[in-house]
Amino acid sequence: MSKVIVSNFSVSIDGYGAGPDQSLENPLGKCGEDLHQWLFATTAFQQIDGKDGGSEGIDSSYAARFKQGVGSYIMGRNMFGPVRGDWGDENWKGWWGDNPPFHAPTFVLTHRPRPSIAMEGGTIFHFVTEGIESALEQAKAAAGGRKVVIGGGVATIRQYLQAGLVDEVHFAFVPVALGRGEAVFAGIDLPALGYRITEHAASAAATHIVLSR
Amino acid sequence: MSKVIVSNFSVSIDGYGAGPDQSLENPLGKCGEDLHQWLFATTAFQQIDGKDGGSEGIDSSYAARFKQGVGSYIMGRNMFGPVRGDWGDENWKGWWGDNPPFHAPTFVLTHRPRPSIAMEGGTIFHFVTEGIESALEQAKAAAGGRKVVIGGGVATIRQYLQAGLVDEVHFAFVPVALGRGEAVFAGIDLPALGYRITEHAASAAATHIVLSR
Repeated sequence: MSKVIVSNFSVSIDGYGAGPDQSLENPLGKCGEDLHQWLFATTAFQQIDGKDGGSEGIDSSYAARFKQGVGSYIMGRNMFGPVRGDWGDENWKGWWGDNPPFHAPTFVLTHRPRPSIAMEGGTIFHFVTEGIESALEQAKAAAGGRKVVIGGGVATIRQYLQAGLVDEVHFAFVPVALGRGEAVFAGIDLPALGYRITEHAASAAATHIVLSR
Repeated sequence: MSKVIVSNFSVSIDGYGAGPDQSLENPLGKCGEDLHQWLFATTAFQQIDGKDGGSEGIDSSYAARFKQGVGSYIMGRNMFGPVRGDWGDENWKGWWGDNPPFHAPTFVLTHRPRPSIAMEGGTIFHFVTEGIESALEQAKAAAGGRKVVIGGGVATIRQYLQAGLVDEVHFAFVPVALGRGEAVFAGIDLPALGYRITEHAASAAATHIVLSR
């Protein structure tokens, strides 16, 4: 059966997983990109993005897990794009570019139906209107026994955690203070949900914590 | 002029600086002591506590700052003891023992006046009823140009941060998930308050972040 994981989810020291005021110019909210600099710098991320270079080490070994043994992804609508309400112009296919880094079936949570979109490189966006459990069932079916990654954003991670549907969570705590944004942990009682810390490794750029249940 | 600092303030991965349900048995709230294991293990802390042993390294070098160049301390009433309302039996002198680790004038914020208490080892507890600014003035006067440490707890740190009265904050993020407790960062916009991260160093036991303004 597919393991359900959150992987490489960056969090600021003040507990935010994205900055405030998400927009087309700031997909991760204001200063939200600061959370992911450690990731962008890794060999593993550069490879996922089809590029050379980057640094090896702890960070890269965690970054590689974003696709190791992974069969499908789930994301919230805000992680797909900034559009709210009706989809409008369906020519716009998310802010992940023509060749998104997922290279696998990717299920987008939404209240508005839309036909699936096949992108370059193997990513297929499927739009799920039946809720998080349905999306997870579909993602598991598509994963064929491999892992399902709950990609984000913050609201989506929180929903899956609170529903007890995530087996393993990897947070990367970064030396960034955002001040405002989307709070990851407010009202989420990780020990009560059955999680305990099973890994802890720090680099000069991030402190990695894995919780399992 | 005295520099005002927060030093060695431990925070869980989910942003809590103390556990829930503080009591005489659990001065730091349930599981609150888990936050400080990294500190207890250091040579510097053992020395402050008048003992030998402990480990050297990053953690110990941060722990030593708790008293390096420090002239006085401020703490909230809940950090002095679990008594709420009237002081009652004044024979009880806080949960820091006969020889508290401060060895300097220590100003306790309270709404209930009480005579100062001279402890062994040079700690003198003064009880301040005129608010956080007055406590800080008194602590600066007592520090004679050396640093004033805002010791805690969470509510006290938050009040001093929000009032813009702290020059430097050192948080130690530990691989502990508390689930519930006293949230340090909710509603505290560190960048808007003028703080930027000036130090970042991680050990196997804690990730140290210093913010300055």
